[in-house]
Amino acid sequence: MSSSNPLHRMLEADSIAFVGASNNPATMGTIQLINLLKGGYPGRIYPVHPREKTVLGLKAYASLRDIRDPVDLVVITVPARVVPDILADCGAKGIRHAVITSGGFGELGQEGKKVEREIADTARRLGIRFIGPNCIGILNPHRRINVTMFPYLHSPGPMGLASQSGSYVTQVIPFLAERGIGYSRAISVGNKADIDLTDCLEYLGEDPATKAIALYIEDLKRPRLFLETARKISRIKPVVALYVGGTEAGAKSSASHTGAVCAPARLVTDLFRQAGILEAASVEELYHWAWTLATQPIPRSGRIAVLTHSGGPASSIADACNRLGLTVPDFSRETRESMRPLLPDTATLVNPVDLTYSTQPNLLTETLPPILLADPNIDGLIIHGIMVSSWLGGLRKIAPDLIPELSIEHLASVIEPSLKVLASLPAQYGKPIICSSFMGSTIEVATRLLQEFHIPTFDAPEKAVSAMAALHRYGRVQERRRLRA
Amino acid sequence: MSSSNPLHRMLEADSIAFVGASNNPATMGTIQLINLLKGGYPGRIYPVHPREKTVLGLKAYASLRDIRDPVDLVVITVPARVVPDILADCGAKGIRHAVITSGGFGELGQEGKKVEREIADTARRLGIRFIGPNCIGILNPHRRINVTMFPYLHSPGPMGLASQSGSYVTQVIPFLAERGIGYSRAISVGNKADIDLTDCLEYLGEDPATKAIALYIEDLKRPRLFLETARKISRIKPVVALYVGGTEAGAKSSASHTGAVCAPARLVTDLFRQAGILEAASVEELYHWAWTLATQPIPRSGRIAVLTHSGGPASSIADACNRLGLTVPDFSRETRESMRPLLPDTATLVNPVDLTYSTQPNLLTETLPPILLADPNIDGLIIHGIMVSSWLGGLRKIAPDLIPELSIEHLASVIEPSLKVLASLPAQYGKPIICSSFMGSTIEVATRLLQEFHIPTFDAPEKAVSAMAALHRYGRVQERRRLRA
Repeated sequence: MSSSNPLHRMLEADSIAFVGASNNPATMGTIQLINLLKGGYPGRIYPVHPREKTVLGLKAYASLRDIRDPVDLVVITVPARVVPDILADCGAKGIRHAVITSGGFGELGQEGKKVEREIADTARRLGIRFIGPNCIGILNPHRRINVTMFPYLHSPGPMGLASQSGSYVTQVIPFLAERGIGYSRAISVGNKADIDLTDCLEYLGEDPATKAIALYIEDLKRPRLFLETARKISRIKPVVALYVGGTEAGAKSSASHTGAVCAPARLVTDLFRQAGILEAASVEELYHWAWTLATQPIPRSGRIAVLTHSGGPASSIADACNRLGLTVPDFSRETRESMRPLLPDTATLVNPVDLTYSTQPNLLTETLPPILLADPNIDGLIIHGIMVSSWLGGLRKIAPDLIPELSIEHLASVIEPSLKVLASLPAQYGKPIICSSFMGSTIEVATRLLQEFHIPTFDAPEKAVSAMAALHRYGRVQERRRLRA
Repeated sequence: MSSSNPLHRMLEADSIAFVGASNNPATMGTIQLINLLKGGYPGRIYPVHPREKTVLGLKAYASLRDIRDPVDLVVITVPARVVPDILADCGAKGIRHAVITSGGFGELGQEGKKVEREIADTARRLGIRFIGPNCIGILNPHRRINVTMFPYLHSPGPMGLASQSGSYVTQVIPFLAERGIGYSRAISVGNKADIDLTDCLEYLGEDPATKAIALYIEDLKRPRLFLETARKISRIKPVVALYVGGTEAGAKSSASHTGAVCAPARLVTDLFRQAGILEAASVEELYHWAWTLATQPIPRSGRIAVLTHSGGPASSIADACNRLGLTVPDFSRETRESMRPLLPDTATLVNPVDLTYSTQPNLLTETLPPILLADPNIDGLIIHGIMVSSWLGGLRKIAPDLIPELSIEHLASVIEPSLKVLASLPAQYGKPIICSSFMGSTIEVATRLLQEFHIPTFDAPEKAVSAMAALHRYGRVQERRRLRA
């Protein structure tokens, strides 16, 4: 594939100029610069300000034209009417890439659309490619590029995102952090006056750090090209999309958000199907599925082993499997024989494996998973309820005299080796593992470690199944294509 | 309705005996006693132990027969084979209520089923009503009764739960706490050898602290009586149920969990419909819906106002509304006129109201909600994105020199009055409010306060819509009945 896509340079920029940041930390532009500067960006930063000599301690330039060194990317956060002048400065300085976060364009109606077309024409004439306007910026946590107004505090990961909503790039950051989900790249496209979702899809498809792609879509500007591009990309990388413009209310809301003109849901569903894109029905599905597809091998078929110490979640997982086209088959005789000496009397040798009350924590993490994954009848594993600190932590709160002092560091050091073994199994067996636990990563060290080791761990049993079904569905998309080829 | 239901006495017990607790905090029975004792139970507690003189600092009795005072409830956690003897002691002592958490009965197959029938016969002969066996216990946080092995650390609330899974009573406690969801009562029924889900449903229907009922069901023992009871209860109180025994895998798993014999999904769906029960498809829906139904007024119809400062979530909410049978109608002229002077230039006067970037935090909480709820075209309100500490907290982490020090207490004291106004509106207008926010209650003071004030606040936009649709559906159930009557 081509690497002429301008997003490569933009997401790897070695130098970034900022037009619209000042020394007032209450303005949006300044906050964006704070995130870049304090987030640890290793490249050069050039604030542009008409009056200040320094901005946030950095030497400031009166104009982009005054910067001597080459500038890979400029971030523009000034009012809409000033944007054309800044683009002219970019042209004069030879800057080829811009992120325009300024609002006040196509989302405000016909007049705004006209101004938007004008800046697009200006940029094209000057050879400038840009994201926006009315976007929230871009993120490359691997390179500590963050020009949005939201700090990115957790680890980078393999999920790439392109979104017509800035909130789905930034506001979701705590939501993603709680689930251990990390971005490779994230791009807020805004009104898409130049660079659109198809460009982003192409770029994320080419980007080696991105293992699966999530798209939030309100409308599709170039549906035919999008379809062609998606078809190519989804052969090599999973693509998940959430489309919200398909209902009357969704279309109306999107029109006032990004000036979108939306197609009915069933047309887009059909387009996604042709493109090999998995269609999510909620933001949670979008991120959970893309994260799982980015971190887990694709199962050969949909035969799932379920392992837990809780009967209720076992039944919920089994039932949800069947509802979503997965099966929960019997184990082979060999598997049952291997398990028999390991299980407590109250447990049974069927699938789901319900350990009931067991005092051997490693059964759930290190001992049983390899046995289940080695079974030729099994394509993937769902484990519910790995926990170590949360229950004891709660007991200690009410009975400090009876429950021994809990050091989270100590508990982590005890369970970490067995969770590392667990996390090595998907690659070893070529079969996915997904976990669920009602214990959030803020109170449960096992959840936090599993997430760190890139084992998707969600807060309810059905969410693990939903993600496993997405893996299975992507496998079938690939299979149909192989059969057709 | 009758109050002969034994659960009234059991869930309000003034004195509880424990058979199976010791001084070893690693055993299940001891942990259950720790939770009762250290959880602040105000009643009398009588540990029974064959050898120890004291258990956890309390005087211990060699046998139930040795206790002089009356005992309302006995909790039995001894091995299965000992249970008949303990029941005989109960009979001799005149104890009429037991919770049998011991496992090793019907869930293990035919032999276990026989033993289970025997203890049921013994109990009936002796006039003892019991929950279990193979259950996890009961919770009444309003009276600080907790005889499960999981500490209950957050506030009591108006949601009543009866569950065939102990995990869905106890393991979910952190999950519920993160969402601000509090139990009125929670009952784990286990194998239902005596008291079953129908008894629980009747009791929760009669219980004044319970405003909505959640049921986790693997099988139904007395479907006809369940239907009759549910029909009566659902007239006065919303009932939500999750049924997991309806698929092949779900039924198989449930059989080995609680010895359940399950009916196909469509039969149970049909029964729920006749009974006026809302059927949830996941544990999350079960709790979110029941919590919302327990705290919010039922909307007259499905016309929803959406208020946010984020275009993406606005579109997601609008789209999800239409998909779930709700509408997002235009506001009345009066509403638009009232809003006009309050909104920033970049906002529009349509529904969803998207404030875009606004520096007036009270718009979202105090100023606009009453205007929207006063609109005769509007039956309920969804607000996304109220936040105060999370974004600033993140910025302060990376830029302590630029962002003023954040005192969560101070931020809470500033936003609390306006959230209190917001929380008073549902009762004032007779219309529900549901919120969503990607900021969890661990990092966001606004989320925590909203949850405390019993405004349901969920971690994704579509979940707020799903809960609103449940309210609307319950309203239609009631309406159909009125029309029929």
